[in-house]
Amino acid sequence: MTSAPDLGFTTLRWAEGKLFLLDQTKLPHVQEEMEFERVAPLVDAIQRLCVRGAPALGCAGAYGMVLGVARAKDRAQWASDLKLSATTLSEARPTAVNLVVGVQHIQGLGERLLASQGDASFDVAAATAKLLEHAIAFHKADAASCLEIAENTLPLLFDGARVLTHCNAGALASGGLGTALAPLHLGHSRGMKFQVYADETRPLRQGARLTAWELARHGVPVSVLPDSAAASLLADGGVDFVMVGSDRIAANGDVANKIGTFPLAVIAARFGVPVLVLAPATTIDPHCRGGADIPIEQRSADEIFGADGVRDGVEAYNPAFDVTPKEFVQHIVTEHGVFQAHGEGHEAWRVYVASLTKA
Amino acid sequence: MTSAPDLGFTTLRWAEGKLFLLDQTKLPHVQEEMEFERVAPLVDAIQRLCVRGAPALGCAGAYGMVLGVARAKDRAQWASDLKLSATTLSEARPTAVNLVVGVQHIQGLGERLLASQGDASFDVAAATAKLLEHAIAFHKADAASCLEIAENTLPLLFDGARVLTHCNAGALASGGLGTALAPLHLGHSRGMKFQVYADETRPLRQGARLTAWELARHGVPVSVLPDSAAASLLADGGVDFVMVGSDRIAANGDVANKIGTFPLAVIAARFGVPVLVLAPATTIDPHCRGGADIPIEQRSADEIFGADGVRDGVEAYNPAFDVTPKEFVQHIVTEHGVFQAHGEGHEAWRVYVASLTKA
Repeated sequence: MTSAPDLGFTTLRWAEGKLFLLDQTKLPHVQEEMEFERVAPLVDAIQRLCVRGAPALGCAGAYGMVLGVARAKDRAQWASDLKLSATTLSEARPTAVNLVVGVQHIQGLGERLLASQGDASFDVAAATAKLLEHAIAFHKADAASCLEIAENTLPLLFDGARVLTHCNAGALASGGLGTALAPLHLGHSRGMKFQVYADETRPLRQGARLTAWELARHGVPVSVLPDSAAASLLADGGVDFVMVGSDRIAANGDVANKIGTFPLAVIAARFGVPVLVLAPATTIDPHCRGGADIPIEQRSADEIFGADGVRDGVEAYNPAFDVTPKEFVQHIVTEHGVFQAHGEGHEAWRVYVASLTKA
Repeated sequence: MTSAPDLGFTTLRWAEGKLFLLDQTKLPHVQEEMEFERVAPLVDAIQRLCVRGAPALGCAGAYGMVLGVARAKDRAQWASDLKLSATTLSEARPTAVNLVVGVQHIQGLGERLLASQGDASFDVAAATAKLLEHAIAFHKADAASCLEIAENTLPLLFDGARVLTHCNAGALASGGLGTALAPLHLGHSRGMKFQVYADETRPLRQGARLTAWELARHGVPVSVLPDSAAASLLADGGVDFVMVGSDRIAANGDVANKIGTFPLAVIAARFGVPVLVLAPATTIDPHCRGGADIPIEQRSADEIFGADGVRDGVEAYNPAFDVTPKEFVQHIVTEHGVFQAHGEGHEAWRVYVASLTKA
């Protein structure tokens, strides 16, 4: 079995009854962990993007559920903490479906435990331990998915490929090697050469701050560019593949991802550069029919204006995500294989999504 | 004749034998003028973008030529200062052709004065005064062009139009009301309503810092958005016109403008939103056949990384401009009229450009 290369940092981990998160608001200058024993500060950290990236949010949500019930004294409190934590965590951010998936995965288990054991037989500590066991398994499964996504993608690439990516869909965004960056990390660890172009990714600069840091730390050559310069690079034939992650993939194959993905895909399509969307199956929302049904988070104007923008009499438009229609996506790669949501691949994609509903 | 509304600031002016420039690196927080008596600090200010925008650079170049000869003691020194100033100023930045046009306009006059007057008859002070007279006329002509561009564009717009713009092609970028923003300023002063969306414009944020400030100061409603969010706004039907300036227009109609204009035009074309390029005739370079011949300035990586980007092992790709092929431009509006460089309008455009060569 494939094993993941060590990247020199850990995005999230559970230890000593606490959740530890690498504080991504402090990267790249300070590599510092935050620790959490309660749900409220974790929700705050999620909203401030100390942890972000759809798969990582799923893992944080699962661990958060454990924190949520860890102080319950009896079955009744455990049940109400379970419910309250699920609501609070799920609502922390709206777009990434993985957050809800991680939360509901643990909530469902908790509800089954409650249903099977009455007041007399319910052991609060044992039930919490059970949730933790499943949260750890959820995290491990995410890491395994990242590796499988990497293995499934590598045959599509070639040695020397020049890859343009947007935002951070790397180890910092997941419980493992990442999604869009996973094949680059894995291929690099096997001696393949890549040249990565990382869109800066305004307004919070996750490309310049996180992707560049993560790749450089692992020795993968990376250049940062303003989001608006990607078109010139694509037009000049400087890019072989556009590879991005996703925050939610609708049943029809439309892809929500960090704002800027949609124009990138339109331009890439125009210049015949394939767009690959890499994501675990937890990112696919079988209940969401198309891109128009994906809730798009609007974030604060402060993210745009920062220190040097005028504010008096000026408004801001700051959606965090956009939707790329399926036609612009060459392949969607998950841990289960390589799919195409439009054209010839549509039927196989439809069957795949239906299989996820049943799972 | 139309007169320009007062916007409450002056981008550049000549007074007391000196050139005064509003220091645009300090906007929007500090409205402060810099004064220049010599060419070298002016070149530095041009390179640091204290003054920027193609038409404004043309005016600054013309006034800079006056500063260049102002200290000459005799005809020989005046002649050599004229030549040296022309070279230094022309090379300050490569993409905007207007800078060279402004410089050469004054240089040509200076050379004619030198040719017509020998050592005995040459009056250094009178010759310098003559250059100044022409530099002021060049500046006034630019302001008049801005007004004519505004008048020529207004019939293409409508009351209530929602306009997306990129970078700053306003009064801050010219010797008058601006280019892309000129019809908005003029229409607003006549009671028309506009909603302007100003792309932030990375990496130096001229949209967020300058366009927003300039429009808000004049009372025109403006929202700032990350460059990468423009596609969502266009896809959602939120924009009626994309209006931009230009740094150089090739003879075939290809348009060089601030990085990000090209993807904006591609996306706008996809959603049927007309792209208008507004520029004075001085921006058209009849000697440049097509976009591939336009020199594109590469700027420092510092502009991208700033304070919070990782640098170790990370490269940058930072072109300041891109080229929009003529097919994506609905209309090019100059002080001479409304043109279309492709399709049915091509022949009229060709004749127009040829007329500029003769002029």
